[in-house]
Parts: sequence; structure tokens; C-alpha cells
Amino acid sequence: MTGSPAPFTADDHATRMRRAAEAAADAGLDGLLIAPGPDLVWLTGYRPVPTERLTLLVLRAGEDPDPVLVVPALEAPDAAEAAAAPVLTLRDWSDGNDPYETAAPLLGAGGRYGISDNAWAMHLLGLTKRLPGIRYTSLTESLPMLRAVKDAAELERLAAAGAAADAAYEEIRKVPFAGRRETDIAADLAELLRHFGHSQVDFTVVGSGPNGANPHHEAGDRVIEQGDMVVLDFGGLKYGYGSDTSRTVHVGEPTAEEQRVHDVVRAAQQAACAAVRPGIACQDVDRVAREYITDAGYGEYFIHRTGHGIGVTTHEPPYMVDGEDRTLVPGMCFSVEPGIYLPGRFGVRIEDIVTVTEEGMRSLNDTPRELAIVH
Amino acid sequence: MTGSPAPFTADDHATRMRRAAEAAADAGLDGLLIAPGPDLVWLTGYRPVPTERLTLLVLRAGEDPDPVLVVPALEAPDAAEAAAAPVLTLRDWSDGNDPYETAAPLLGAGGRYGISDNAWAMHLLGLTKRLPGIRYTSLTESLPMLRAVKDAAELERLAAAGAAADAAYEEIRKVPFAGRRETDIAADLAELLRHFGHSQVDFTVVGSGPNGANPHHEAGDRVIEQGDMVVLDFGGLKYGYGSDTSRTVHVGEPTAEEQRVHDVVRAAQQAACAAVRPGIACQDVDRVAREYITDAGYGEYFIHRTGHGIGVTTHEPPYMVDGEDRTLVPGMCFSVEPGIYLPGRFGVRIEDIVTVTEEGMRSLNDTPRELAIVH
Repeated sequence: MTGSPAPFTADDHATRMRRAAEAAADAGLDGLLIAPGPDLVWLTGYRPVPTERLTLLVLRAGEDPDPVLVVPALEAPDAAEAAAAPVLTLRDWSDGNDPYETAAPLLGAGGRYGISDNAWAMHLLGLTKRLPGIRYTSLTESLPMLRAVKDAAELERLAAAGAAADAAYEEIRKVPFAGRRETDIAADLAELLRHFGHSQVDFTVVGSGPNGANPHHEAGDRVIEQGDMVVLDFGGLKYGYGSDTSRTVHVGEPTAEEQRVHDVVRAAQQAACAAVRPGIACQDVDRVAREYITDAGYGEYFIHRTGHGIGVTTHEPPYMVDGEDRTLVPGMCFSVEPGIYLPGRFGVRIEDIVTVTEEGMRSLNDTPRELAIVH
Repeated sequence: MTGSPAPFTADDHATRMRRAAEAAADAGLDGLLIAPGPDLVWLTGYRPVPTERLTLLVLRAGEDPDPVLVVPALEAPDAAEAAAAPVLTLRDWSDGNDPYETAAPLLGAGGRYGISDNAWAMHLLGLTKRLPGIRYTSLTESLPMLRAVKDAAELERLAAAGAAADAAYEEIRKVPFAGRRETDIAADLAELLRHFGHSQVDFTVVGSGPNGANPHHEAGDRVIEQGDMVVLDFGGLKYGYGSDTSRTVHVGEPTAEEQRVHDVVRAAQQAACAAVRPGIACQDVDRVAREYITDAGYGEYFIHRTGHGIGVTTHEPPYMVDGEDRTLVPGMCFSVEPGIYLPGRFGVRIEDIVTVTEEGMRSLNDTPRELAIVH
């Protein structure tokens, strides 16, 4: 076990802000408007809770982003402690004043700005009212790959998060399943993730029996029984970067059909991973998994996209989905997670986080993918 | 101790949706667009995680809201279990399709719609692109008091949350403070809130010594010392409704100045509470607290508004802030929380949740407000 990675410095953040501002210029934008959430964390290290009080990082497109962070006055002391604070100008506004008046002079009267996907509509509407001449586009639309290509320091963190998730999976197979509630296993998983260094647990899906057929089922009161398939899907943040892994286990010996469905998902997942390399379109990773499952007769039961990017948050571009024709670039990190969901019966999902390398891909998860028997 | 309140039924939610649709018509809106978050929880009981996948409740203004919930296909099984599901039409969309195409036919080609404050900008921009003729306003702007007036069932829950926070405060004064980190006290507070029935803890501020002078400081590694003032501000959800209480305690005997500052805040808080009654403007509650503190010579150190509404979330309209000239109505619930923050030295804040009654107000918190001595 190595120690924690060194924290990102103001210089690291300045580099990211410059990269973002240059990408904005290349995309024909005049600037970027960054809201609390993953974009702001990535650019500045600052993580305020998003609220009705406007916090907004304004970057000018081009070579000199001249970053200005608009913050509520009472949060200014927190903002001043952010990693990027030395390379930011803070501009605060006080309760009772109009924060959009504070932000407006930082933007031109016209032009086109990219805005964080998760910026609040009320803030976008507040800006629009004050500056009706500006056109806005979401970053997913105008600059989707802003955070998609990870550098070495980011890959180190994602690999550490993946290894911790793997360690949690190795341990969870040893706990008793039969006779316990899904929520009990979920609590065990959360504890294991924290034990292996996660600072935040975002989800611990335990979908047993028919609940496994709902891909977004979290964990409920259902008591797990002998003979259940159980989908496990868990992740969170370690060193500020995400983990997200799924494995499907079986309580006791599976039936031939259960084993067959699992084999199909496993082979589809393997095929999709094998397809990952620079230059291939995101949608082709999805297509490979989908065709395999369709050819095996289960196409209608694979009811979600094959994957999503991961970084300072667990869902971000690039998305491995039909219609996404952007191509993979070394350093991108995303999930490969096909599944089959048989309504009222059971589900199977297998998920790894992979990163694109010069030659192909490397998996950041490394635990066995065969159907594990638990007790 | 009485049992849990009965859960809200589909009928309860239908009533709320009707009330919202009628209020929308009165406000000159053609409909409401409700995003995951407190508005959606209040209207439907459904609490999905807000993501890049569009979930949107569309209500028609007027007497027949005809509610339709647009959901990602893979979340449809969860949506179908929401309390309001029996009175909703679900319309799902699958990964790879354009969710705004699914939503568009539910809206007219023109008109004016209110949209949840916290709807994601990417979704608002997606709708705008598909339906450029529609004008949007945030609910804070167009329908700020939608959830502000609580009914008896909501008041019962807010009172239960307040009583639980009070019980936590009674207990926390018994734990040792001196020599322990702020984060230790914060963990104690969180455990107490859960012990007294909170399902979710949203914040446990422990601002000791100079940290107390930053109103948004949460809790850090600082070791609390003999002679420290310590601001405690804690809350979360019980039965789905919020608590939010602040008290300031002192480790050992306070100095005369510390006692004086606390006395000023206490009297200001009392005066502001005494001003609460139907018909008074929100800003006047703020003005009463601010004038008292200003007259005592500390006006420049009271750096935030006096209060915020509370309900299914811990920050919502009405806001007790300069410029808010809307008037109080029986059933509104909000915080009254003046404070004084002396940079680099210490802070004091006292906060209760109050509800407006026909005659005046009733406090939902009832623990002593004098400066408590802890050890």
C-alpha cells in the first residue's frame, strides 16, 4: 500500500483552467460559467453545496482565462481556502443584493457561453434576464470532453479507487447472504468501501432475486434467499475520484438458465472491453455489447447504455451509448457494464472501469468476473 | 413518544398537484416543470437522484393538472412505486433517444412555464432548443410560496423534527468539548440526530473559537479549548421534513465581552421572533433583528439574512431578507437566526424554527437560548 497522492496544487488547477479556456475558444465559445459540482471541483478544488445562493466561476475563453469566482459573502472564507484560491479572483455578494448584477460585468453583453450541466435553472434564468443577448449551451453539448481525458495523477487516483472497490468485493463474498436483508449487505459494502479508503460512498446496490431485474433498484427490505441471483453495484470517491463496479453473485448453485444468462453478460462485457481502443466511436463499444446480447436472444432485456465516464464524479461523459459518435482517446476512463434484466425474475450485470491506452485498454478493476457462489 | 405519522397518500399528492396547478394559473403560467428535488418530493413523493438523464414532471396550469412524469426507462420501475404513481401518467424514454422529444408534446409551442429552481441547466437548455417559443421562469421568481404554507400533517412532521433536534441539543451539552476536535462533536451530533429519529443528517456545524466567526464553517480538525465559544448548527430530515437549530455554547466561563455579544444576539433573536405574525413583511423580520444588532454596535458583523423557509428541504422560501416584501401567512415555517461574527475571534448564532399562527408565532424549538456552559 502506497501513501495518499499529493493534493492538487493551485498550479495544477491553473493548468486545468487554461486547458478549459483554450478548449472553449476552440469550440467557438466566449467563456465558461462553472457551477458548484464536479466541474468546479475539477477546476478549482472548491466544493460548496449548490444552493439558491449563486456561486459561479467565470472563465474567459482563450489563452488568459482570468478566472473570477462569484461567491456569497458568507461563503467567501471557505472559497478563500480552495486549492485554486491563489490563482482566482474572488468577487463576493451579500444577502439582499442581486448576485446576477455582480456576475454580469464579468461577461460580455453578447456572445456564447458554455455553462455547467448541473447549474441551477434559476441561476441560468437570472443571468439570462440580466444579459438577454448571451446564448448559452450546456457543457455536455459544447465541451463534453472537457474532463474526459485523465492525466497521470488522475489515473493514479482512479486506479486506487478501483483497487479499493475490488478489495471490498473480495471481502463481501465472505459474508453470509441467505437470510439477511439487502440493506444489511449494502451496509456491509459501504463499511468495506470506507475501510478501504473511500471518503464517500455514493451507492451500494444490492438487487436480489426479482429486484435484480430493476437496474436502478438500490437495496430494500427483501430478505435474500437460497437460490437468489444478487446484483452488486457499488462505488464512491477515494482521493476525490470515483469507483463503480458491478458483479453478480449467486446464493448457492445456479440453475442452468441463470448460468447461461450470466455467461452471455460476461462474454458481452469481455467483447466490449476488447473493442476499446483509441479511435473507435463510443457508440461502437455499446454496439459490440448489444449485438452479442441480442444474438444470444436477450436484446430486449438489455435496457440501458453500456457505460459512462468517471472521474471526480461517477457519471460524466463519455457515454457509451447509441448515437455517440465521438471517438475514444487515450486517458479516457469509463464503465463497461452490460446487463440482462428478466422482469419479475432476476438480473445480471458485470461492470469494470477501464481506461483507454495507446494500444487498447487497461481495466482498473481486476476481480474475477465469473458467477461467484456465496452463502 | 407517539408513532410515525401516516405516510402521504396518492390523494394527498393529487391535492398538492391541483393546488400547484391552480397557483400556476393565478400566476399567469401555462404549466409547471418539476425537476428531481424538493418540489418533486413534495408533489409526488418520488425522490430520484438528479442526473444527466431527464426526469421531469409536467403539470398543466388550471383546474386539471393532468400530471405526466417523464422518466428514464430504467428508472420507471422506481417511479411506479412513488406515492403519487396512481394519479400520474408515466412516460418513459430509453438511453440513446432524445428525452426532450418525449417531453415536448406535453407542452404547448408557446406560453410561459415555471421550472424548479434546481432543474439542471442542461435540461432547461435541451427544452429551450426543442421549444424555442416558450418562456421560462424559476419557481422562486414566479411561484415562490408554492410550498411555503404548511398544512397540519406537515406541521406535525416539522414539530417532530424540531423536537428531535432539541433532544440532540440537550444531550450534546453533556459530552466533553475541551480537548476534542470539532469533527468529534459533529459526529456526536449526527449520531444524536439519528438516535432521535432523523433519517438524514444534512449538516452538523461546530465552529469553535475563530472558526465560529465563519458562519458557513462546518467542522474541522481544530481541537476545542477551554475558553472557546462554540457555534453549533445542526439539522436534517425526520419523517421527510427538516430540522435546523443553532445554539452557541461556551467551554467554561465566558468573558464579559463574550457574554455581552451573546446577550445581543439572544435579544435580537427574541425581538425578531416576537415580530412574527400574519401580514408582516418577511424583510421586516430581518429588519427587527438587524436594527437591534446595529443599535448595539455590531451591525457590520451580522453578515447574513435572518432566516429561510424549511419544509421537505432545509432552505426554501420564504426568506427573511432585505428586499423580500411578501408578507407572512399562517402555516409558513422558517428559521429566525441572527448572528454576530467577529473575524479571527468568535461567533454567536441562535436559531429556532418558527411557524406563523393566526395570532403570531409558535416556536418548533424549545431548548434554552442562554449561553450554555459546557466542559
